[in-house]
This record gives sequence, C-alpha cells and structure tokens, in this order.
Amino acid sequence: MQRIAFLLKVKADRLEEYKRRHKEVWPEMLQALRDTGWHNYSLFLREDGLLIGYCETPNFKKAVSGMQKKKINALWQAEMKEFFEELDAGAADTSMKPLEEVFHLD
Amino acid sequence: MQRIAFLLKVKADRLEEYKRRHKEVWPEMLQALRDTGWHNYSLFLREDGLLIGYCETPNFKKAVSGMQKKKINALWQAEMKEFFEELDAGAADTSMKPLEEVFHLD
Repeated sequence: MQRIAFLLKVKADRLEEYKRRHKEVWPEMLQALRDTGWHNYSLFLREDGLLIGYCETPNFKKAVSGMQKKKINALWQAEMKEFFEELDAGAADTSMKPLEEVFHLD
Repeated sequence: MQRIAFLLKVKADRLEEYKRRHKEVWPEMLQALRDTGWHNYSLFLREDGLLIGYCETPNFKKAVSGMQKKKINALWQAEMKEFFEELDAGAADTSMKPLEEVFHLD
C-alpha cells in the first residue's frame, strides 16, 4: 500500500462553501473513489486555504487514472475546479503531486 | 481513533540532513512514540521545506503530552529544533497544531 500526501490551494473566499460541499460528496463519487482504490482518504484545510490530502492506495497513478475514466468524476471535478487556485493540470485530481515521505512509523 | 495532520517548516538549507536523520531515528524514540499512541505516523517533505505530518492516535493531546514526559524525546527535540523555522512553542512536537479535517472516506 502506498501512502500519499499532496497539497492544493483552495481560494480564500471559497473555504466555507468548499467545506460544505465536502460534507455532502455525492454517493456515486464516494463509490467511484472506493472502486478505484482510494482508501483512508482525508482532506485537511488550513485557515488560509492550503489543502492537505492524505490517502492510502495500492497504486496512486492507477487510482488517479481510474477516476479519470469515471463520468461522475468529470462532473465533480468540473464543479470543484472553480474552488482552487493555480491548478497545474486543469483539474484538482490530476494536479495532485505526491510529496516525498521521509519518515514512517506503523 | 483521531486522524491528525499538521504542518511545520524545515529550513531550506537543512533538508538533506533532516531526511538523513529521519532514516535513522533512534529505536528508543520510535518505541516512545509507539508507547504514547502514535500510529501510522508519516512525515512528508515538500522541496521548499514544508513538512506535512499525518498520524492516527486515540487522543492527540495525550500523545503529545505523553512524549513530553519521555527523556528520549527531550534529547530528540533538542537536536531537531535547529532544523525548523518559526516554532511557535519552542520545539517541533509542541508546535504541531492539528488542521481541520474537512473530508474522510474509509
């Protein structure tokens, strides 16, 4: 299992709406994440909009590419796009660059 | 179990040494972490020194205060202190402020 952390930036004036939307993620979107290998997936938000993602997955590249094939993800990412600053790859999911893990204790 | 994420900042000119030190954390320090409830604990480092911590613990306040009572932790934190920028509470461990978790999928 790979442990993945990534960072994104939510626009400072959209934080409350971003949080609200993530309390009611569409059930089909949650199922698509499960089906493509996203486990123990959390998002943490700093007050200035810095977003920290953490997940565990057999293969992060496959988890991302698996979601790319899901129609529900295209709909979700289209709605989420406007919440983010500076997306390298156009959408949040393809802009998630894994950071280097420098320590781990089980 | 609480899921905790926190951010710290490693000095940009100390990254390689910080990484090296974390490949050889003292066994007594690892045992102290286990004994005080630090589970699935990872540190991720961005190229500019931003450090992301993630751990799971029954009670984060107790995990931090438990480590405060360990002599080995005082020695470790004393050696680590110089690697960090802007520590609010003097040492890295007491400067770990949990971020708000806004989404979770098991």
